[in-house]
Amino acid sequence: MRIELLTIGDELLLGDTINGNAAWMGQRLAEHGVEVTRSVVVGDELDVIIEAVHEALGRAEAVITTGGLGPTYDDLTRDALAKAAGVPLRRDPTLEKRLRDRVEAARRPLAPMALRMADVPEGASLLGNTVGSAPGLRVELPGGVVYALPGVPFEMRTIMTEVVIPELIEDSGLHEVARRTLRTAGVWESVIATSLAEVEALDQIKLAYLPSSGEVKIRITATGPDAEQRLAAAEDRARALLGDAVYGAGDDTLDRAVHRLLAERGRTVAVAESLTGGLIGAELTAMPGSSATYAGGVVTYATELKHRLLGVPDDLLREHGAVHPDVAAAMAAGVRDRLGASYGLAVTGVAGPESQDGRRVGTVYISVAGPEDEPKVFNPRLPVPGVGGEIRGVIRRMTVVHALELLRRAILGLDVEHAAREAEEDREEKG
Amino acid sequence: MRIELLTIGDELLLGDTINGNAAWMGQRLAEHGVEVTRSVVVGDELDVIIEAVHEALGRAEAVITTGGLGPTYDDLTRDALAKAAGVPLRRDPTLEKRLRDRVEAARRPLAPMALRMADVPEGASLLGNTVGSAPGLRVELPGGVVYALPGVPFEMRTIMTEVVIPELIEDSGLHEVARRTLRTAGVWESVIATSLAEVEALDQIKLAYLPSSGEVKIRITATGPDAEQRLAAAEDRARALLGDAVYGAGDDTLDRAVHRLLAERGRTVAVAESLTGGLIGAELTAMPGSSATYAGGVVTYATELKHRLLGVPDDLLREHGAVHPDVAAAMAAGVRDRLGASYGLAVTGVAGPESQDGRRVGTVYISVAGPEDEPKVFNPRLPVPGVGGEIRGVIRRMTVVHALELLRRAILGLDVEHAAREAEEDREEKG
Repeated sequence: MRIELLTIGDELLLGDTINGNAAWMGQRLAEHGVEVTRSVVVGDELDVIIEAVHEALGRAEAVITTGGLGPTYDDLTRDALAKAAGVPLRRDPTLEKRLRDRVEAARRPLAPMALRMADVPEGASLLGNTVGSAPGLRVELPGGVVYALPGVPFEMRTIMTEVVIPELIEDSGLHEVARRTLRTAGVWESVIATSLAEVEALDQIKLAYLPSSGEVKIRITATGPDAEQRLAAAEDRARALLGDAVYGAGDDTLDRAVHRLLAERGRTVAVAESLTGGLIGAELTAMPGSSATYAGGVVTYATELKHRLLGVPDDLLREHGAVHPDVAAAMAAGVRDRLGASYGLAVTGVAGPESQDGRRVGTVYISVAGPEDEPKVFNPRLPVPGVGGEIRGVIRRMTVVHALELLRRAILGLDVEHAAREAEEDREEKG
Repeated sequence: MRIELLTIGDELLLGDTINGNAAWMGQRLAEHGVEVTRSVVVGDELDVIIEAVHEALGRAEAVITTGGLGPTYDDLTRDALAKAAGVPLRRDPTLEKRLRDRVEAARRPLAPMALRMADVPEGASLLGNTVGSAPGLRVELPGGVVYALPGVPFEMRTIMTEVVIPELIEDSGLHEVARRTLRTAGVWESVIATSLAEVEALDQIKLAYLPSSGEVKIRITATGPDAEQRLAAAEDRARALLGDAVYGAGDDTLDRAVHRLLAERGRTVAVAESLTGGLIGAELTAMPGSSATYAGGVVTYATELKHRLLGVPDDLLREHGAVHPDVAAAMAAGVRDRLGASYGLAVTGVAGPESQDGRRVGTVYISVAGPEDEPKVFNPRLPVPGVGGEIRGVIRRMTVVHALELLRRAILGLDVEHAAREAEEDREEKG
C-alpha cells in the first residue's frame, strides 16, 4: 500500500514552521510497516490543494493531509476536499453544538468564523478529535481515500494514533515487515557498521544507521515471511556483536537508561557543568520522576566559581586554567560531596567558536566520581567541523551525550580505562 | 519567479530526519522576496527523482534539490540529473584530485565509492563547496534550471548563501518585497493582534503572527512600490503600539537581548533553577562570549538543596513546600549573593505531568533579585494543555521564556507591578 503525505500551510513553505508533522507521521507509519512514498508541502491556496490531492491519488492509494482545518479564512482543506469530491459542505449540528459549548465554558464571545470548524464535506466521515476543536475527516475519492487531520501536532498525533493507523493496518493487510531500533552512544558509525557486517549480510534484513550528536541508532528491518522471528534473531546477533555499546532500544533514551540504572541501585547523581551551561541537568530532568535519582547541579561558568562552589583547588586553576583533566576530576568529586549524591558527573571544555587558554575548540574533559573510586576522566576527542556558527551547539550537544554515556559505563563498572589513559596523556602533553 | 524545493532521501520519508533544510531554504528565500510555491520530498529512487524534477519544472522556473550527492550507492541525484538532461556523467579531474588530497591529508584509505563525488553531468556547472567534499551542481533543463545541493545542512547553507541566492535575486529582478520580524515574549498572540489592527489595515502590508512557547514573532511584509519605505513606516507604527513588549527584531533572540542589556550596564546574572533543570543556563550560554555577563547557576532539584546551596530558610520550605513565591524570592537573592552576581534569577514550579504539594501543573514562580531592590516575584499563569505526554516539555520551555523576559524587564526597570501583585494574591490564597 502506497501512502503520500500532503502538509498544507504557507508557514511551512516560508520556513516559519519546520515540518515535524511529516517526520512524525513517516516514522509512526514506518513502524507499522506502512511506507510513505512521497511527501508534499503546498500553501493555503484552494486550487493548489485540490490539484495536489488529485496528483497524490494518481500515484498512491491513500493520502494523509495535515493543516487547513482551523477557523480562519485561509484554512481551506475542508473546501478543497468538498470540491475534489464534487459535493457541498454541510454544517454538522453536533459539531456546532460542541463548538458553542466550548466557547461558552471559556466565557468568551463566539467568533462567527469559529463555526467553520463544524463544516463537513457531504458524505465524509468524522475522525473524532478528543483533544481539540476541529475533527479530522475521511473522504473517499475515486482514486483513493483522503484522511484530513488538523495541523496542531498534538491533535494530529492523537487522531493518527487512535484512528488512522489502526484503520490503515487493517486495510493494508500486509504485516510482514518488522523493525527494531538499537541505540548506542559514543561509538563511531563506521566502527558500528564494521562490527555488524555479518548481520547486514543476512537475507531480507536491512540495517540503517542514524547518527546524531554522538549517538548512533541502528534500525534493523526484516521483510518477508516470519519477519518477526528473523528480526529477533538479527537483533540478538547485533546485540552480541555490539556488546555493552547498546544502551537501549526503541524509544528509550540515554537519560532514561541512566535513571533506570541509578534507581535499580538506589543511587543518585549530581552534575557540575561549564561549557554545557545546564544542558546535562536539563536532559536529566526531562523525564517525570527524575527527582528520585537526580539531586541537582551547579553551572560553574565563571572559572572562579569552580573554586568557590565546588572546591576545585585555586592553584590548579591558576596553573592549568579551567580546561584540564584534573579540574574535571575535582569538579566531579566536589559536586558529589557538596550536593550529597552517590555520583558526581562533571564537564569542562571549549565549546568555541574561539579556543581558550591554548586549548583547541572541542577539547572536553568529562569526569565521573563514583561512590567508592577515584574520579575517572574521559576525553571524548570530539571531531570538530572546520568552521561555522553552529560549531558551539554541536560541541555542546556531543558533550552531553558523551557525559551521560560515561556515567552509564561508570555505574555499570564497564571499561573506561582506554579513555582514562588518553586523559593521562593529555595531562602530560598539556601540563 | 516560482521556485520549488525537492529534498531527497529515504530518511526524510521515514521521519528519521526532520526536514530542516526545506524550512531553512524557504525562510532565506522568502527574506529575499523569492517565494517557494511547493516543497516535495522523495526517497532514494532514480526514476522517482527524475519524475519529480520534471514535474516541478512543469510548474516552476527553478528547482532546488538537496541530498543524494554523497559517496554511497543510494546517492542518486547526480545520475538522475544526467538522465533528465540526456547527458553522460563525466569524472572531473580537479574534483578527483581534491578528493584524493583530502583523504590523504586525513591518512585514511580511499574508498573507491568516494570518487563518485567527482562525477558531474556533462554541461553542468559546479557550485563550489568550500566546506565539504561534494560540490553543488547547476543543470539547465528545457523546463528551467536545477540547483542540486548536498543534504548536509552546513554545506547546503553555505552554497545557498554564497552562490544560489545571489544568482536567483539577480535573475528574478523583482525586489519589491520587504520583510521584517519583530519579537515579543510573555504577551498573548490575541493581545498583540488586537493592538496591531491599524497596522494590519495598511495598504499592501501583511502581518503574520508566529507563536512558540511564550514568544510571539510578528512578521511584517510590504509588497509593491517603495516596499522598503512603507515597511519602515509600518514597523515604526507597530513598535509604537507594542511599546516595551518588543525585545528585538530579525534573528535577535531573547537571550542575546538580555546579554546586551547586562553588558551595557556592566552587570552579571546568576540563575537558580528547579523545574527547568538547567535549561535557563543552557539558553544563557548558547551565545559565544556569554561568560562576560553570565556567572553561573545552581540547579536545586531536590528540595533540601534549596536550603543547603541557596540558603532558602528551612522553615519556609517546611511550611509551604518548594513551590511558593517566597521560595522563589529567597532562591533569587541566594544565588545572586552566593555566586556574586548583580542579578539573581530563580524559578520554582510544577512541570508535571503530576501536581506537586497541592500545586497544579503549570504553577510557576519566577523571581528576579536586582542589585538594589527587593526580589520581584512573577507568576506567568501558564495556560496548560489538557492532557498528554508533552506537557512537561511545554511548561519547561515556557518557563525559560518568561524567566528571561522578566529579567529583561527588571534590568530595564519596566513595570512588573501587576505580576508582583498576582504573586501577592497567590501568597494569600495558598498560604
